[in-house]
Amino acid sequence: MATVPSVSNSITVRLEVPARGNAVSMITTAVESSGGSVTGLDVTASGHERLRIDVTVAASSVSHGEEIVEKLRAIDGVAIGKVSDRTFLMHLGGKIEMSAKHPIRNRDDLSMIYTPGVARVCTAIAENPEDARRLTIKRNTVAVVTDGSAVLGLGNIGPKAALPVMEGKAALFKRFAGIDAWPLCLDTQDTDQIVEIVKAIAPGFAGINLEDISAPRCFEIEARLREALDIPVFHDDQHGTAIVVLAALTNALRVVGKEIDRVRVVMSGAGAAGTAILKLLLAAGVRHAVVADVHGVVHPSRADLADAPEDSALRWIAEHTNPEGITGTLKEAVRGADVFIGVSAPNVLDGEDVAAMADDAVVFALANPDPEVDPAVARQTAAVVATGRSDFPNQINNVLVFPGVFRGLLDAQSRNVNTEMMLAAARALAATVQDDQLNANYIIPSVFHPDVAKTVAAAVREAAQATGSAPAHTPAGTIGITEGADGVPPVL
Amino acid sequence: MATVPSVSNSITVRLEVPARGNAVSMITTAVESSGGSVTGLDVTASGHERLRIDVTVAASSVSHGEEIVEKLRAIDGVAIGKVSDRTFLMHLGGKIEMSAKHPIRNRDDLSMIYTPGVARVCTAIAENPEDARRLTIKRNTVAVVTDGSAVLGLGNIGPKAALPVMEGKAALFKRFAGIDAWPLCLDTQDTDQIVEIVKAIAPGFAGINLEDISAPRCFEIEARLREALDIPVFHDDQHGTAIVVLAALTNALRVVGKEIDRVRVVMSGAGAAGTAILKLLLAAGVRHAVVADVHGVVHPSRADLADAPEDSALRWIAEHTNPEGITGTLKEAVRGADVFIGVSAPNVLDGEDVAAMADDAVVFALANPDPEVDPAVARQTAAVVATGRSDFPNQINNVLVFPGVFRGLLDAQSRNVNTEMMLAAARALAATVQDDQLNANYIIPSVFHPDVAKTVAAAVREAAQATGSAPAHTPAGTIGITEGADGVPPVL
Repeated sequence: MATVPSVSNSITVRLEVPARGNAVSMITTAVESSGGSVTGLDVTASGHERLRIDVTVAASSVSHGEEIVEKLRAIDGVAIGKVSDRTFLMHLGGKIEMSAKHPIRNRDDLSMIYTPGVARVCTAIAENPEDARRLTIKRNTVAVVTDGSAVLGLGNIGPKAALPVMEGKAALFKRFAGIDAWPLCLDTQDTDQIVEIVKAIAPGFAGINLEDISAPRCFEIEARLREALDIPVFHDDQHGTAIVVLAALTNALRVVGKEIDRVRVVMSGAGAAGTAILKLLLAAGVRHAVVADVHGVVHPSRADLADAPEDSALRWIAEHTNPEGITGTLKEAVRGADVFIGVSAPNVLDGEDVAAMADDAVVFALANPDPEVDPAVARQTAAVVATGRSDFPNQINNVLVFPGVFRGLLDAQSRNVNTEMMLAAARALAATVQDDQLNANYIIPSVFHPDVAKTVAAAVREAAQATGSAPAHTPAGTIGITEGADGVPPVL
Repeated sequence: MATVPSVSNSITVRLEVPARGNAVSMITTAVESSGGSVTGLDVTASGHERLRIDVTVAASSVSHGEEIVEKLRAIDGVAIGKVSDRTFLMHLGGKIEMSAKHPIRNRDDLSMIYTPGVARVCTAIAENPEDARRLTIKRNTVAVVTDGSAVLGLGNIGPKAALPVMEGKAALFKRFAGIDAWPLCLDTQDTDQIVEIVKAIAPGFAGINLEDISAPRCFEIEARLREALDIPVFHDDQHGTAIVVLAALTNALRVVGKEIDRVRVVMSGAGAAGTAILKLLLAAGVRHAVVADVHGVVHPSRADLADAPEDSALRWIAEHTNPEGITGTLKEAVRGADVFIGVSAPNVLDGEDVAAMADDAVVFALANPDPEVDPAVARQTAAVVATGRSDFPNQINNVLVFPGVFRGLLDAQSRNVNTEMMLAAARALAATVQDDQLNANYIIPSVFHPDVAKTVAAAVREAAQATGSAPAHTPAGTIGITEGADGVPPVL
């Protein structure tokens, strides 16, 4: 699949060119004839003889960037200086920081923010621990926890290399939901240790976002933490993905006019995301689901299931899907299916497989960066196609979900996160696409749609209150502090 | 000891008073006749008949505030509304937050800060883990870790109640040294668990600041973490205090014209702070030190030492102090001493004890809020007196030390913190008081002295490089990012 020039592969090249002649105009020509695109051209120094120009170029890949630089070097009279990478530039020194909310200008400020005044606040919380939600950062703070074992598509790259993703996640939490998140990248991949650590750090946080932890450890870690903690624990790779997939499927079925309890769904991938998607789809009413992994369709008599642990995800899948008891390959299973959902590997299906699906088929090919089937090919016969990529319509992106979900959980002061809240989040997300906006190329809103996070948050907050996971009366719709002087705790 | 009205016990009282008559003027009179002081008076609503006034009052204590309110209530025609507490107001929702350094305005920003662009940065760090110091928050980030077991003078109040102190500490790190600190309040007081947890969270931090962990666990936790980690581990209650005491003692001896290797030092308190102060004083050249605790002077034949573990702090003290082998009480030991340093309990000495010290005695009575001896009484015979209180001259305050020490450690990319760095920090702090400024009431600068943190940082950075704890060449004097475009990693 061809990739297009992207700002994420953007480079800035410093050039010196003769002031006279046509060297400047040849710069743009050279970039574009190489398939790049010029996104900025600044003359940063000028003399009678020479110009210094910083050209910013979007390339398709690192090697494509190298090719473009060689083309520029070949222009007569051009000297190439430093080449810098915009994405790396944005990462220098990290992407997030801590800020104090109040200035510390003098001894009076110090005496209230720190000693001796702080002691009275500590004493108040010691006497009533619930006050930590009012008088500390806890109310609005989420820990983004990873062990670096399954980072993006990069695999087990460890905690330090995972940090840029977790910082980015924290930045998105703030941007879309006003949440203060801090990354904790753990130097252990031991399940027991991770559980102990997260339990221990919990007092200062109102929620735990697990991230990029490999299966099957992620299931046990999440389950044990949910059991142990009185704050919600959410594994975004599982549940964030499941919620956005359910929302997108809801709208895809609106487009093709099918009912969720009548469609045949075939899934490729039985990992963390696949299992979570499956469970949420079943909770949402899907009755005909079949899951395939690298060994083909999952069914109870499959040889490798005999060795699977009692509580394994694969055994759960075998027991809760495939009511017709079909066997064989993914390609066989997908014939006649209404919906295909892939969270697995590139190119496991081709155009013929999609053509063999039912009429008005829905194809979600979410493997990234290379989907399970070329979306352009799938679109020739399928009615609705979605991917995880930003350069096709219908991007299935967790950023649509996790900020709003946590905003709702925090606003409700929820002690947990449950299936009802996740279903509510998916319904709310789907409903942001109104009937007059809905079509095959717009089943899911942009991540920059201004209503997404608050709509999802409101739905989650209501579900938390309705299911008894949160106090019935909490301040509504908060981002940060809502109490004015009237919410202030009286001393006297 | 009388306490004066303090803004940290400041309250805002909402009053309704008749618009006519002298009720308004009686407000100030009532407050001042009660020993409070009016620091603000705002008319927040006005009508023909009534005024609504918010009066802000500094009281000496919570109960004093209550008295003042009752005096206000007694004024004819005054109705008391809500009474709020300024210190609690500043704590609502917490004192710190997380901020993103770059805006996320559109898909281009998203593609560099998050996926897909971030993957290239992760890969770069996976290939060269040292790049985490350039491409992530690690370089400028410190974990403020507590178990809530010894918070201020409040004792074992637990992790949630400790959070306001740790947030305040983080705010001070930013204010005085541009450091991004995040609090981790641990829900365990088990030494092994704390060690495991801090080891595990270390990848995302460039330093660990242990805080308010009770002795003797704090010694073992710190020692094991220093052994295990490649980033500095600093227990501020020990080493921050030790550094500021050494700096203050250096200058007190400048005032009285005595040499550090000639003075007789008597200490009260053998806890975490006392032990650390002692060790640093010995490293700085003190030869005659005697330590007393609740059982009197520590000496090798004291009964309770037989039961003390081999590696206990008390045994270490017995072996490294008291060269004359004196025994008896603190009061006996202090006779004829040049220097008294108390980090113990209120009122263990009186004016006669201080009068019995050597001529030009130096008294540091650091128990807080009530010192080992009334500083006003001590000052009648001692040449120099210091306390931990902000309402007397010569406040011994860790805020003078920890921001600069960590700034230096981070700038040097130091792998540890050693005695040489602590001695250098104390020397640098002492030297900020110049000869023409030095006197008995100014042996230590204000925490708002603009040169303190950077002077201490420079000294620590040099010591880190000189002792081989840090790379010889690191960017100097950084707060945050220093690389411009010229420090950018080239892709090509």
